[in-house]
Amino acid sequence: MHPITVVGSVALDSIETPFGKVESVIGGSATHFSTSASFFAPINLVGVVGNDFPKEHVKFLKSRNIDTKGLEIADGLTFSWKGYYDYDLNTAHTLETNLNVFETFDPKLPDSYKSAEFIFLANIDPELQLKVLEQTTQPKLVVMDTMNFWIESKKQHLIRTLQEVDIAMMNDAEARELSETHNLLDAARRILGWGPTTVIIKKGEHGVLMFTDKTHFAAPAFPLEDIKDPTGAGDSFAGGFIGYLAKTNDVTEANMRKAVIYASVMASFSVEDFSLNRFKRLTQKEIDGRYAHFEEMTIF
Amino acid sequence: MHPITVVGSVALDSIETPFGKVESVIGGSATHFSTSASFFAPINLVGVVGNDFPKEHVKFLKSRNIDTKGLEIADGLTFSWKGYYDYDLNTAHTLETNLNVFETFDPKLPDSYKSAEFIFLANIDPELQLKVLEQTTQPKLVVMDTMNFWIESKKQHLIRTLQEVDIAMMNDAEARELSETHNLLDAARRILGWGPTTVIIKKGEHGVLMFTDKTHFAAPAFPLEDIKDPTGAGDSFAGGFIGYLAKTNDVTEANMRKAVIYASVMASFSVEDFSLNRFKRLTQKEIDGRYAHFEEMTIF
Repeated sequence: MHPITVVGSVALDSIETPFGKVESVIGGSATHFSTSASFFAPINLVGVVGNDFPKEHVKFLKSRNIDTKGLEIADGLTFSWKGYYDYDLNTAHTLETNLNVFETFDPKLPDSYKSAEFIFLANIDPELQLKVLEQTTQPKLVVMDTMNFWIESKKQHLIRTLQEVDIAMMNDAEARELSETHNLLDAARRILGWGPTTVIIKKGEHGVLMFTDKTHFAAPAFPLEDIKDPTGAGDSFAGGFIGYLAKTNDVTEANMRKAVIYASVMASFSVEDFSLNRFKRLTQKEIDGRYAHFEEMTIF
Repeated sequence: MHPITVVGSVALDSIETPFGKVESVIGGSATHFSTSASFFAPINLVGVVGNDFPKEHVKFLKSRNIDTKGLEIADGLTFSWKGYYDYDLNTAHTLETNLNVFETFDPKLPDSYKSAEFIFLANIDPELQLKVLEQTTQPKLVVMDTMNFWIESKKQHLIRTLQEVDIAMMNDAEARELSETHNLLDAARRILGWGPTTVIIKKGEHGVLMFTDKTHFAAPAFPLEDIKDPTGAGDSFAGGFIGYLAKTNDVTEANMRKAVIYASVMASFSVEDFSLNRFKRLTQKEIDGRYAHFEEMTIF
């Protein structure tokens, strides 16, 4: 068994989309990632919540083989986010962000987490990402995510963290902004130039591109009819990706291609319902079925 | 040999992009289509030009095994288009359109064209598309393209023409506008409901989706660094698609997938230079090489 250590946010989300509305549900990058990845490998979760965080959520995470020893419970309120999507489900509109206990988050890895070979640095301050990475003792594969906020406010720190990771994962707008170029092939090359051996660019409904120095791989997205809530799709994608690599303990480029498809499968399920709801009733048979559907959809 | 009969525009284009500028070069949907398809099959071209149309252009078309018996030379000026693209190369900005002799175009098929089994109705008035189709005697595969102008001004005629074709091909914005729905899977289903057995939706740099009642196929676009001029990419795509189907004389869904890849290959070359310039120096070896690259890029 190859566990994955993940650091990121654990949040309470209030979300409205054209297809429904939820109040104060479990959210956050580390949460979406962990739940998705837990279908493949055991997870070590590093994060912080306030003492208002419902115990049932912790219970749920534990039920998914997610170790919550690293989930600190701090005095105060849990990080909360309120937002909405209109029919263009690619764009989240933020109404309210309350960092709360997340503002002074100082991630510390429990000893049992340090030796994990698979590390996911979810979208948090790049200085904290580096701090977590420095606590690991034998990383085999380090993947980082980021977002426009850090590109704009902490670009030099972000580039510093990029130097230490194997895979940079971001969406197309972020890749363009970070590299200051429009063409995604150019963008990938510039990001590779900062250190990672692999860049994965997520294009939402248009699929995913994965670049290394010598190869590129293009995968479509699963064509969905009913997208209820896109929140967490990117972290669910990362969960399927690293989850599959950890399960197979194989980080070759050929296996990463399969991992991109499992990632796309998990992202496609995650958006079919609010919060983690779709994962709560997801089966291995459904995952395998959708993977086969991807094969059928791309073969020529 | 299975010739393709195509009807569409033959034009003189003046184009500016961030990468250069050309004045009064050979353009038009039928021209781009024919030149692309001529790498695969003999072509029967139906169109109209004015008596200002340079003879060298006709000579070029003939040199590509394109029959120009159906290219009427009318008194007056050739259809001309002037436009530009900025860095978002997906959007053409029109500065000037002069229909000229194209305004009263009444397509008539020479007898030798009528028996062609492969028919491409390029983007012209849907009433004219139908008129051309009615002159064919044994069509095996009829493909039509269209654009927002006809969707907005002649939707009922367009739907009438759709009932008579096998494959509807359009870009994503057009598919959404025609079907009055945002989701492309829904859009494809509605269009299939009007008659075609297959719908192909072109998403520019995001690739292509092909839908039938029972299947869907997703192909990426070729990641290009140097796009000089996107004019004619869609018609070059159609040329590769129908060209390959005519060459292999096989219209099964499995073969159409390969045809979509050849279509993408031809579109990717077409944008690497202005007008038909890239095709003038394109080799079969380059076509096969890029097809292999598509295989390499999508396998998992």
